[in-house]
Amino acid sequence: MTAPTATPVVVVVGAGLVGASIGCALTARGIPVHLRDQKPSHALVAAELGAGTVEPPVEHDVTLVVAAVPPNALPGVIRDALVRYPGATVTDVGSVKAGVLAALWDSGLELERYVGSHPMAGSQHSGPLTARADLFEDRTWVITPHRRSAPASVAAVAAMVQACRARQVIMDVDDHDAAVARVSHLPHLMSVLMAGHLNSVPAEHLVLAGQGLRDVTRVAGSDPELWEQILGANSAAVLLELRSVQDRLDRVIKAVESPGSGELQAQLCLGVEGTRRIPGKHGATQVAYTQVVVEIPDAPGALGRLFALVGDAGVNVEDISIEHDQVRQVGYLALSVAPDQAPGLTAAMTAHGWSVQP
Amino acid sequence: MTAPTATPVVVVVGAGLVGASIGCALTARGIPVHLRDQKPSHALVAAELGAGTVEPPVEHDVTLVVAAVPPNALPGVIRDALVRYPGATVTDVGSVKAGVLAALWDSGLELERYVGSHPMAGSQHSGPLTARADLFEDRTWVITPHRRSAPASVAAVAAMVQACRARQVIMDVDDHDAAVARVSHLPHLMSVLMAGHLNSVPAEHLVLAGQGLRDVTRVAGSDPELWEQILGANSAAVLLELRSVQDRLDRVIKAVESPGSGELQAQLCLGVEGTRRIPGKHGATQVAYTQVVVEIPDAPGALGRLFALVGDAGVNVEDISIEHDQVRQVGYLALSVAPDQAPGLTAAMTAHGWSVQP
Repeated sequence: MTAPTATPVVVVVGAGLVGASIGCALTARGIPVHLRDQKPSHALVAAELGAGTVEPPVEHDVTLVVAAVPPNALPGVIRDALVRYPGATVTDVGSVKAGVLAALWDSGLELERYVGSHPMAGSQHSGPLTARADLFEDRTWVITPHRRSAPASVAAVAAMVQACRARQVIMDVDDHDAAVARVSHLPHLMSVLMAGHLNSVPAEHLVLAGQGLRDVTRVAGSDPELWEQILGANSAAVLLELRSVQDRLDRVIKAVESPGSGELQAQLCLGVEGTRRIPGKHGATQVAYTQVVVEIPDAPGALGRLFALVGDAGVNVEDISIEHDQVRQVGYLALSVAPDQAPGLTAAMTAHGWSVQP
Repeated sequence: MTAPTATPVVVVVGAGLVGASIGCALTARGIPVHLRDQKPSHALVAAELGAGTVEPPVEHDVTLVVAAVPPNALPGVIRDALVRYPGATVTDVGSVKAGVLAALWDSGLELERYVGSHPMAGSQHSGPLTARADLFEDRTWVITPHRRSAPASVAAVAAMVQACRARQVIMDVDDHDAAVARVSHLPHLMSVLMAGHLNSVPAEHLVLAGQGLRDVTRVAGSDPELWEQILGANSAAVLLELRSVQDRLDRVIKAVESPGSGELQAQLCLGVEGTRRIPGKHGATQVAYTQVVVEIPDAPGALGRLFALVGDAGVNVEDISIEHDQVRQVGYLALSVAPDQAPGLTAAMTAHGWSVQP
C-alpha cells in the first residue's frame, strides 16, 4: 500500500451499500473506520456488520474521508469534511464528477485535499445490510484528480482503492462523465424504456417473458430517486447519447420495414460486434484460443470417450463447436484451447486413434 | 401423460439446441426419438448426447414430428412431414406462428394434424452440444391450435410439452405473435440498439462497463441470421412496438432536458413498475410477505445474535430492510417472512427480549 503521510484513520460518511462495503473492506485490512450516517441506525447496522465503529474519531487524526452519500448531498458533505478534518484527504464515490467539482471550485476551500473517485460496483440493492468486504474486488475504481489536487491526496485515495482490492483507473473528470453516460447511464435509460413499455403489455402476454426480457429490464428496477440525481447531474452527456440512440432507432425501424434489404441483418451484426467490445469480467482482453479439430466418428460412445481423453490430458476446453463438411458429409468437433495446450492435446488424441486436422 | 392414440414414436427434425434438448427430455422419459438434421454430424452429436437415434423410423409408426429448424425452413419441413408420416401429428417450435400457418393454409395438406407450438426456452448458444434434458422444466411452452387442428393432435403436442416438464399455455396464433413481439422481439431489438451503440464508444470508456451494461446487451450477442428470420416473420407486430418505444424515447429525452420537472422521476418510476409486472421465474404471482419489525439495539453483536435466533427458529427471511425513525432517532429491522411464519418468529423474538413492533 502506497503509504500516505500518516497512519490511516478513515471516516465514511453514508453507511449505504457502497459506504458500508468500503468500511468492511478497510476494517478487514486493519484500517480504523469511523461511520457516520444521517440515519444513525444505518451506521449502527453497518458497524454491527463489521464496517467500523460509530464512535466519532479525533478530528485532527483523520487522514481520509469518503463521502458515500446520494449525488445531491455530495457537495455539502465534501465541504463539511474539508473544514472539519483539516488533515484529511476527502474523496467521494459519486457516479458523476464534473458537477460536484464545479460546486466546490470557488468555495475558498483547500481543494488540493479533494480528489473524486467512482467505484464501478454496486447493485440494485441499497443499504448496509447487503454490504460485502469483497464488493470491489477486481472491479474498476476510477480516480478523477483535478488540476488543483495534491499528489499526496491522489496517493491517499489510490491506497484506499488498493486496500479494497479494486483495479485503479485514472481519468479526467469530463472524460469520466462521458464514459459513464455511455456505459452506465444510457444502458440504464434503455432498460427503463423497455420496462416502462411493459406497463402497456397485457398480463397474459407477460407470462411468456423469458430470461432476455429479465436481463434487459433488470437495472430499471433500481432506486428511481437515486437515478434521477445521477442522470440529472450528467444530463448534457446523457442527452448526446440518447439523441444518437434516437437516430439508431430510426434506422432499426427502417430496417424492420424493409425486409430482405439486408439492413436488419446489418443492425443485428452491429449488435453482436458491440457486445464483443465489452471487456471480459475482470477487464482482461479476450484471449485468442487455438482450435484442435477432430473428425466425429460414427460410433456409439465416441464423444464420451473423447471428453474423457480431454479430461485425462488435463486440458481446459474453452469452447466447442461442430463444423460440418457439406460435400464429404462429415462432421468435425472444434475444441478451443489455450495455444500452449494445443500440441499436447493433438498428440494425445492422435495417439488414441483420433483423426486430428493438421 | 395424456395418451395419444398410439405408442409415441417421435421424429425431431433439426438437432440444434432446442431440437436436441427435446430429444434428450423425451428419451429420458422412455419415448423413442429419431433425429434428423440437414447436417448429419449435428444429428450424430445429438444422438451421442442422449437425444435419440439417427436410425430412420418406420414411417407409418411415427406419431409426432417436431420441426426444430430455422423459421424460414419451417413451412417446407412441416409440409414434408405431413406427407411422409401419414399417421403423425406435426408441430414446430418456431418463435412466430402466423406466417407459417399462412404458408401452409392453402396447400391441400391435412392441416388437422398440424399444431404449432413455442417453448419459451433457449439461450444465446446454439447447436446440439449445449442440449439439456431439463431445458424446458418449469418454462412456459405455448401451444397455438388453429381452427382446423384436430383435438387429438392438440393432445399429442400437449403430451410432449408435459413430457418435457414445461408449463403449457394455449394461445391463439395472432395473440401469440403479438405477445412475443412485446416480451421477446422488442427487448431483443432494444438490446441490439444499445450494443450497436457501443461500436462508437472508445475502448478506454468501455473499461468502466459494469453488470448493468452486460445484462442489457446480453441477448444482442445471439445469432443474427436466426434473429433476422424471427423478426422478419413478425415485422408487423414488432413495428407497432418499436413505434411505441420511439414515442417513449422522445418523452425520456424531454424528461432529461427538463430537470426538476418531475418528468424524469416519473419515467424512472414507470420503469420500476414495469419490472414488477414480469411474473416470477416460475410464473408464480408474487407472494405477499409479512413484516416482523424489531428495534435495533445499540449493543455489540446484537445483529449476529438476532440472525442466529432467526436461524434457530427455522424461519426463511425473504428480505430485510432498515427503517429509521427520524424523530426518535431509533432504527428498526423489518424482516419479511411468509405470513404463516410471522407469529412463531414474533413469539421467539419476544421470548428472547427483543422489542417487536405490534
